Amino acid sequence: MYLTRFAALAATLLAPAMAVAGDLRADANAVFKPIDAASVASVVKNNEITPAKIDLGSKLFFDPRLSKSQIISCNSCHNLGTGGVDAGPTSIGHGWAKGPRRAPTVLNAVFNVAQFWDGRAVDLKAQAKGPVQADVEMNNTPAQVEKMLNSMPAYVAEFKAAFPADPKPVSFDNMAKAIEAFEATLTTPNAPFDKFLKGDVNALNDVEKKGLRLFIDKGCAACHGGVNIGGNGYFPFGVAQKPGVEIMPVADKGRSKVTNDAADDFVFRSAPLRNVALRAPYFHTGTVWTLEEAVDLMAKDQLGENFSDPDIKAIVAFLGTLNGDQPKAVYPVLPPRTKDTPLPQ
Amino acid sequence: MYLTRFAALAATLLAPAMAVAGDLRADANAVFKPIDAASVASVVKNNEITPAKIDLGSKLFFDPRLSKSQIISCNSCHNLGTGGVDAGPTSIGHGWAKGPRRAPTVLNAVFNVAQFWDGRAVDLKAQAKGPVQADVEMNNTPAQVEKMLNSMPAYVAEFKAAFPADPKPVSFDNMAKAIEAFEATLTTPNAPFDKFLKGDVNALNDVEKKGLRLFIDKGCAACHGGVNIGGNGYFPFGVAQKPGVEIMPVADKGRSKVTNDAADDFVFRSAPLRNVALRAPYFHTGTVWTLEEAVDLMAKDQLGENFSDPDIKAIVAFLGTLNGDQPKAVYPVLPPRTKDTPLPQ
Repeated sequence: MYLTRFAALAATLLAPAMAVAGDLRADANAVFKPIDAASVASVVKNNEITPAKIDLGSKLFFDPRLSKSQIISCNSCHNLGTGGVDAGPTSIGHGWAKGPRRAPTVLNAVFNVAQFWDGRAVDLKAQAKGPVQADVEMNNTPAQVEKMLNSMPAYVAEFKAAFPADPKPVSFDNMAKAIEAFEATLTTPNAPFDKFLKGDVNALNDVEKKGLRLFIDKGCAACHGGVNIGGNGYFPFGVAQKPGVEIMPVADKGRSKVTNDAADDFVFRSAPLRNVALRAPYFHTGTVWTLEEAVDLMAKDQLGENFSDPDIKAIVAFLGTLNGDQPKAVYPVLPPRTKDTPLPQ
Repeated sequence: MYLTRFAALAATLLAPAMAVAGDLRADANAVFKPIDAASVASVVKNNEITPAKIDLGSKLFFDPRLSKSQIISCNSCHNLGTGGVDAGPTSIGHGWAKGPRRAPTVLNAVFNVAQFWDGRAVDLKAQAKGPVQADVEMNNTPAQVEKMLNSMPAYVAEFKAAFPADPKPVSFDNMAKAIEAFEATLTTPNAPFDKFLKGDVNALNDVEKKGLRLFIDKGCAACHGGVNIGGNGYFPFGVAQKPGVEIMPVADKGRSKVTNDAADDFVFRSAPLRNVALRAPYFHTGTVWTLEEAVDLMAKDQLGENFSDPDIKAIVAFLGTLNGDQPKAVYPVLPPRTKDTPLPQ
């Protein structure tokens, strides 16, 4: 299935790119979309975004008491100060356990087709429940989380305000919905590339424009397109040749574990590339520490090409234009624990 | 030596309290001081507080890349969302190591006579160097920190702006000075008790006033006075009777390890009590989870008294009036790593 989609995308992308090679902005607008205020409202499903929900979600996102140890918050691995992700290579969780895959960035994650590298969570509210329970991450249980939240009157009041029609406002599900509402605000608009797409042809310099042209014409955009410059579909890793096992270990077969289809072995959601320059290391193993190496690897393993050094530099320069305005979150003051709050374990 | 100071303090505090028992506000102003804007400037020594230094310090405070693993920041254990401290009982550091003592709050720490439970750091800039290097905390080295900071042009520029006269602006010492500058801003003014001290006699209700009267008359204020309602001197723990070993283990002799004076065995800096209701658990072992138990223990072990339940409740109510305006920090966007940035270990 992915192959069909891959081929179709490649056809639609490459054909017009070559046909009107001269109009870079038009070609780019055929493949990518800028972030605008209207983008978010249209992509969040089954969860009305309200100020009360966002405010509550902000507290939950930063609250380490969602974890069993009470020291790990969402922000621990999806750090808003460092591109929405941690320092890698993979995250450290409960008991200093190392996670199996690089944490994906939370920034602009709302635009992804689905969440996690294998897309096993349909959206951010489904995703938010995963790390809270994963034994190598926050290692908690829904029951314990609800007990924790119910122990603090300030949280109970905030859940009531955020979910006024819900007869049981304090719930694990609503925790996830509030976190999704907050995370949906974590977009990074106004990147130079957004300005270029919208008409400011001087927002990119000549090297960056050359990189964009290469990114489209060489086929990178076939998997890394749309508003999030990736994150919009599933594609095989190692089309032209298999990456080394340190980059793509044989034990992690990717999306086939979700679909139970051997055809999806080593298929992953394409990486969304907004702010990519701010959040090394790269790939699902977090084993590549520079964009130059990442671009070179993609060229060889996905496209079967050897890019020249100047071409790699140009593409990396273009990727640098994907850095947008980073979210300015106010660090929230959290409800104080009470005698009924579970103890850290 | 501590006994002399203890006795002198007790004498000066208790005498006037009894003499003019009727004027609670006057008695309180003889023992305590409100937080005001002028308080901070006068207490930070050898480190001019400038906006550039505060801004840099804010980034450093939240930057997990100061730690060897690159996942632990100052804020991990001194969490601004939960009273300037973590969930306890003691902090979890590198490799999931558990620290020997409860993390002290960073809020209003600038007012303490010295830093750490044993006062081994003369001020906040001396303190800031400790956890970065402690093997059970951030487990890093000054050389590695300087290498990390120098690898990011945005940090280098900020250090130059914060230390314009320094020929080597990026240094471990200056990291500590910038963190001190930021931490000096982490005060919590406008607590109901501050308003009472300044003249608003209705800022405390009758139960809270009863608690304040008991706090002064019973002798609590002998160790917990000044602007930080404690943190202003060293006092023996277990004056009337030794607390249980789970509260005060025999292996941790407190200040005597700093002074090399056996007379300082089990002497600790008195706990500063501002926002104390926001940051259970209590004592240097973090083993007491409610203020009611903490007050009862203090009465028995320090004063040799059994407080009645209503008296304990009144004192706890008074302690609740020490919650001030919590700092509203903007979560900083940190400089992105480069190819020269040390990898997490």
